[in-house]
Amino acid sequence: MRGDSSVDAPSVPVRLSQRAEWTRKQAIGFLMQQAVENPQVISLAAGLVDRDTLPVEEARGAVAEILRDEEQGRDVLQYGTTQGAERLRGALVDHLANLEGKSPQEMGLDPNRMILTNGSQQLLSLICQVLLDPGDICLVAAPTYFVFLGTLAGVGAQAIPIETDEDGMRMDALEAELKRMESAGELDRVKLIYLVSDFENPSGISLSAERRAAAVDIARRFSKEHRIFVLEDAAYRELRYDGPEMPSIWSHDEAGDTVILAQTFSKSFSPGLRVGYGVIPAELLEPICDRKGNEDFGSAHFNQQILATVFEQGRYAAHVEKVCASYRVKRDSMLAAADRYFGDIPGVRWVRPHGGLYVWMALPEHIETGFDSALFQQAAKTEEVMYVPGELCYAGSEEQRLKNRMRLSFGVQTPAGIDEGMKRLARAVRSVL
Amino acid sequence: MRGDSSVDAPSVPVRLSQRAEWTRKQAIGFLMQQAVENPQVISLAAGLVDRDTLPVEEARGAVAEILRDEEQGRDVLQYGTTQGAERLRGALVDHLANLEGKSPQEMGLDPNRMILTNGSQQLLSLICQVLLDPGDICLVAAPTYFVFLGTLAGVGAQAIPIETDEDGMRMDALEAELKRMESAGELDRVKLIYLVSDFENPSGISLSAERRAAAVDIARRFSKEHRIFVLEDAAYRELRYDGPEMPSIWSHDEAGDTVILAQTFSKSFSPGLRVGYGVIPAELLEPICDRKGNEDFGSAHFNQQILATVFEQGRYAAHVEKVCASYRVKRDSMLAAADRYFGDIPGVRWVRPHGGLYVWMALPEHIETGFDSALFQQAAKTEEVMYVPGELCYAGSEEQRLKNRMRLSFGVQTPAGIDEGMKRLARAVRSVL
Repeated sequence: MRGDSSVDAPSVPVRLSQRAEWTRKQAIGFLMQQAVENPQVISLAAGLVDRDTLPVEEARGAVAEILRDEEQGRDVLQYGTTQGAERLRGALVDHLANLEGKSPQEMGLDPNRMILTNGSQQLLSLICQVLLDPGDICLVAAPTYFVFLGTLAGVGAQAIPIETDEDGMRMDALEAELKRMESAGELDRVKLIYLVSDFENPSGISLSAERRAAAVDIARRFSKEHRIFVLEDAAYRELRYDGPEMPSIWSHDEAGDTVILAQTFSKSFSPGLRVGYGVIPAELLEPICDRKGNEDFGSAHFNQQILATVFEQGRYAAHVEKVCASYRVKRDSMLAAADRYFGDIPGVRWVRPHGGLYVWMALPEHIETGFDSALFQQAAKTEEVMYVPGELCYAGSEEQRLKNRMRLSFGVQTPAGIDEGMKRLARAVRSVL
Repeated sequence: MRGDSSVDAPSVPVRLSQRAEWTRKQAIGFLMQQAVENPQVISLAAGLVDRDTLPVEEARGAVAEILRDEEQGRDVLQYGTTQGAERLRGALVDHLANLEGKSPQEMGLDPNRMILTNGSQQLLSLICQVLLDPGDICLVAAPTYFVFLGTLAGVGAQAIPIETDEDGMRMDALEAELKRMESAGELDRVKLIYLVSDFENPSGISLSAERRAAAVDIARRFSKEHRIFVLEDAAYRELRYDGPEMPSIWSHDEAGDTVILAQTFSKSFSPGLRVGYGVIPAELLEPICDRKGNEDFGSAHFNQQILATVFEQGRYAAHVEKVCASYRVKRDSMLAAADRYFGDIPGVRWVRPHGGLYVWMALPEHIETGFDSALFQQAAKTEEVMYVPGELCYAGSEEQRLKNRMRLSFGVQTPAGIDEGMKRLARAVRSVL
């Protein structure tokens, strides 16, 4: 058999699934490849977290505790459940209550409504899998988190962009689009409204308090033949540097049947542990757990116990404060550098975010920022600075994508690196004006 | 908005995706629920690993090393890549060579052909996602790993059972089925042949060396319009207690374009870390990484570094030996108890496995073992012992499922618990004869 002549014959072609074709080649792959191939480039593109704030001491303390005795050590090295460790889900009920400015009793959340996932990305993916058939519709902000656009594409769903302003997605525009769809007989395809509630990636904007309540109301009013869910991605919620703390969209869902809340420890603690979590409307819980069971039987029990121990040891809040202090300085560095280097370029504007990792910058209308643009080439090759082209962050047709935007991240670089990167980027912009 | 009257109105129905409907309610859920509701029951059903062998000391040593200094500590707490840490993939090339009885040079495997996943289950799921459209076919042994039947169902694929004997899946039967499909014009639906090569779950049988080579040859010969892949699930490979060590099916794929090899540390080290791995034919690598990127951006980098360190510290092989020594005693206990309690029941037969976690037992033809059977009720309720009904492990129509088989696991119980469980089970069987 080993000498079979067919071994040397050319391979028969691979036929992938429809879903694999839909999933092909996300822009993030191109960006990561650029970063690998050009290590000397100052990346204002990467949404990675600040290395210097990663919690080595906290992780050490938690692991020492969970592996201290043999009995407990074996427990944490054994399989967990698909839904995730009850100990961490319990701690998260208290944590969420704290973020909502309520006592756990007032909030009354059952830990059985929570699920633990591989970062919040897995929860976003699971939601898409259990809700969206090919051709189904998810309404998203314009701009929105570009990786999620890939997740939607990967299940063959359609993303429809809704206009935004300085308070986030416009609720009048959302309602108008839903009415239009209803008139066109297309409301039965709408399953989901996706909202990044705090310090949105890429715009840095938070959805205003009134719009949070309105989003739930609109989803309920247009839930006619079937329910329309709101998927609230609150990944950046805890990276708040100033400005008011706002209750989540989820807190406005008093019946608890409309909003899926997705959060993560990847930004506030450690992405290397891959622990995300969510609160799930009761009727979605079993389908999501069934699907997760199919995909991996549950996330790493060991890592869930590390996080639970960090909470129990009272080290989480202090760590988040440290992280925010570091990012606040970086955000201020980026805004100062924007003033310094871009302040006198006519037609350049940017958002001043109160949290998160991104500054969203608009260039004069005729300056395109895409991978093939003169600016991107000038920035990446000559000036050696990288950004995320804003057009990646838009759903819809070519005409619906603003071509003159850039997403600039202050997450990874030092304040000095941010300043240098912004200086180079401004030079690149001037060179193509 | 908060006073919206619709909050108290009955909820609008949820409309799940087709895929969610396909994924619904796996048998494993029923079994786990039974276990939770009846904690006093002796479970010979659970495929969990032996708690007492979990590597607390080894995990401590590895974590101490990776978190020893701040620099390295931050690296392991940062995002990894979607494909997984190169350091672990490198160690795995050596490890696989060792399992194949070759030097790494002889084997010549590129670590870039490997991917790290959340246990091997995620790899099985990813393969189904990127290869199988609804209605596509995967050929499986009869019996086979029942969780994988759920994974196939979850993407709407069809599993077709192939006859097995004491050497595993019959290659003449596999070839005959493929010919039948070709004649019927259905070969274009066949994408995958799934084989659990060592100490199969549930049968305990290993595929013979000749059949390993034949499986690759058959897959290649029937790859006409498109490639048919062999998915080799070698999850139990390292749990070998006696008998010969065999090169994998993958080792017979000299062109490296036909076999996907899936392995895991969940059985040999710790399931709580959720680290599985695979070797992927070149043309599937990008689609699988793209899909994994969509699903979770990559598995926990921290856990991958723990495993890499366990290898580097030279503690892996010794741990596997310890695990095998413990399971060998348990297997012998179960076989001795089978002789003792079932030896004189006419028509009862069982397989004597050389590794893995399972003894596959056949009862007289008329004794059904399913959840609704008199035996299952008598066992679970009266005798308080649990097993996995064999019929769950068959693809195909009702008539193709043998109703008189039981999967008995010796993984979790102590030798005394195994003996007691087998005694109870024999009493239950006698009571329904």
